[in-house]
Amino acid sequence: MIYLDFAATTKPSSEVLEIFNEVNAKFWANPDSLHNFGIKAEAVLEHSRKNILECFNAQNEYNLIFTSSATESNNTIIKSVANLRQKQGKHIITTNIEHPSVREVVLNLQKSGFDVEFLPVNEKGAVFVEQVKNAVKNDTILVSIMHVNNEIGSINEIFDIAKAIKKINKNIMFHADCSQSVGKLPVNLQNSTIDFISFSGHKIECVKGVGAIICKKNFNIQPLLHGGNQEFGLRAGTTNPATAAALAKSVKTAVKNQKENFEKVKKIQKILLNEFKKNPEIIINSPENNSPFIVNFSVLKHKSETILRALSEKEIYISTISACSAKKSAESYVIKAITDDAQRPKSSLRVSLSADLNENDIFTFVNELKNIMLSI
Amino acid sequence: MIYLDFAATTKPSSEVLEIFNEVNAKFWANPDSLHNFGIKAEAVLEHSRKNILECFNAQNEYNLIFTSSATESNNTIIKSVANLRQKQGKHIITTNIEHPSVREVVLNLQKSGFDVEFLPVNEKGAVFVEQVKNAVKNDTILVSIMHVNNEIGSINEIFDIAKAIKKINKNIMFHADCSQSVGKLPVNLQNSTIDFISFSGHKIECVKGVGAIICKKNFNIQPLLHGGNQEFGLRAGTTNPATAAALAKSVKTAVKNQKENFEKVKKIQKILLNEFKKNPEIIINSPENNSPFIVNFSVLKHKSETILRALSEKEIYISTISACSAKKSAESYVIKAITDDAQRPKSSLRVSLSADLNENDIFTFVNELKNIMLSI
Repeated sequence: MIYLDFAATTKPSSEVLEIFNEVNAKFWANPDSLHNFGIKAEAVLEHSRKNILECFNAQNEYNLIFTSSATESNNTIIKSVANLRQKQGKHIITTNIEHPSVREVVLNLQKSGFDVEFLPVNEKGAVFVEQVKNAVKNDTILVSIMHVNNEIGSINEIFDIAKAIKKINKNIMFHADCSQSVGKLPVNLQNSTIDFISFSGHKIECVKGVGAIICKKNFNIQPLLHGGNQEFGLRAGTTNPATAAALAKSVKTAVKNQKENFEKVKKIQKILLNEFKKNPEIIINSPENNSPFIVNFSVLKHKSETILRALSEKEIYISTISACSAKKSAESYVIKAITDDAQRPKSSLRVSLSADLNENDIFTFVNELKNIMLSI
Repeated sequence: MIYLDFAATTKPSSEVLEIFNEVNAKFWANPDSLHNFGIKAEAVLEHSRKNILECFNAQNEYNLIFTSSATESNNTIIKSVANLRQKQGKHIITTNIEHPSVREVVLNLQKSGFDVEFLPVNEKGAVFVEQVKNAVKNDTILVSIMHVNNEIGSINEIFDIAKAIKKINKNIMFHADCSQSVGKLPVNLQNSTIDFISFSGHKIECVKGVGAIICKKNFNIQPLLHGGNQEFGLRAGTTNPATAAALAKSVKTAVKNQKENFEKVKKIQKILLNEFKKNPEIIINSPENNSPFIVNFSVLKHKSETILRALSEKEIYISTISACSAKKSAESYVIKAITDDAQRPKSSLRVSLSADLNENDIFTFVNELKNIMLSI
């Protein structure tokens, strides 16, 4: 098979599974148990927490809360800020291309009386720093802007945006969903004014079911899950040293290899884009200088699902919109946000890449795509 | 080591880890991806869901939602009923010995205006059916009562209570936290009037990080996590075929062996109780005819933590209160609920058993406990 859906999920690496199994064999106690076996399990958890923070140069100013997913992280952060700061204001700024786990949360807040501003992205699928600055009002409490978009790979200048916002009002919280950037672009939190980032493990060869919130130490999160006193009282539920260690392993590996993998993928992306440009029926939706890990395109004459299924029969796996939206809607709200063309959102397809791919995989994919386009 | 803390967590079995690793090797796609590889991952997820429901004879009338933990399940169920039914009433009935993941949620609801009634348990650490019936008011919307208490092993007659409540008013929702009963006592949902049960995998030799809600098909849950459309739109976040299959394996094994394990543990519990009864300094807190998997006792002269730590030095692992409460408080609110004695809650200790233990483990533990009691 040729798997070109790495933005949906990745295969857990053998090293990640090895450490996961090792922890489950040796340190399977409940980290909240007071006995020595529990203390050993807690040490694995805390060691993993420290390791991950170090990968972001965040060990001094930030804390980490383990969650079950980036979705849970995003829900916790946004609802938390909204609930805790609603007396100071109800204005929330975000973009019109956020992942459903941000978009649906703010839409829900909007229903319950929050004033949510969805900034339109520019032709590059991103927001300008000035645009965000201009949107800030006296009652703005939160700005939530994703680092890399999951459908088209556009990049927001989150570090610059966070700086600009804090200059206006340091009490405005800034959150960046980094699910598609961790391990793919540099995410360095040293001297950063970002308050929260969120991400999950399964996008970077970890097992599914583990995510994290990295947040400034001074901010108090309101838990979404009540119960035990785990995770500094901020996230109840038995903690999991095995997935924590697995996440630490995958973040360390991804961050260590980030530059090298970026260059490899950039090469593969170039080949793919060159092939696409030879075919006038293919319109590339991804902007230039985006994250090379994601290439979005439309084949105007055909519905995206038709092509996806035909490729799938050849064991070539790409996606239409994000997996999280795939069964909900046939049209991409992200592509709609970057074009007035009515056809492109209906026919958009996403190829997402990894450094494990080689040129031949790309040529095979492009050839099969051509054959399909001729035959349907 | 002698591990006597099975109510806190268990070691994932080799069969569970085998299936977990197999799914991660072969079916690691995102179940929401539309291609064939995603469809295969989805099949694993759905097969696991069906298998688990069958273990409870619940396949016809109930649905299952995978969560990250029993804590998440309890939070989702209780907040859901409260939010969706608050127009019909704000009265919630529960007991004064619930797990923190129920207790803290209803305490929070109380703060936001709900009328929460904490029924006092009787000397057996349980509530009478009549007592619950008498507590029902016109504006009661939810009754949440645990099946087996996690600290003393007392058993509530959840099936009878559910029946009695529905006779009064079929619109009152009934929830039972079954974290300490699944695989230990029969939990048969056929012809049951229970609306929701919750449990997690790690109490029955599954990996940590997976739980479930089993709920009547006709009830619409309000999601706690917003985002993608996973789990029938009721729980956003990438689904995890590997932990779903692991949970199915562990539930199937636990339910298949339930009777046999119960008898084995009953024998071990008897030996332990006999030994305890020989020692006048030991007061048994667990009621008679409780779940044999849990034996709670107090050594009045000593703080529970002193004994726990001394045993821990000998690699014998027991607990004070539940792991979820252990770092929060030195006193058990559960023991407080069953006695007026001020000392017993401060000196209570929990031994929790499994069928893998043998008589010698118990004798070794009892001897070491005696030595410690003499030496401190």
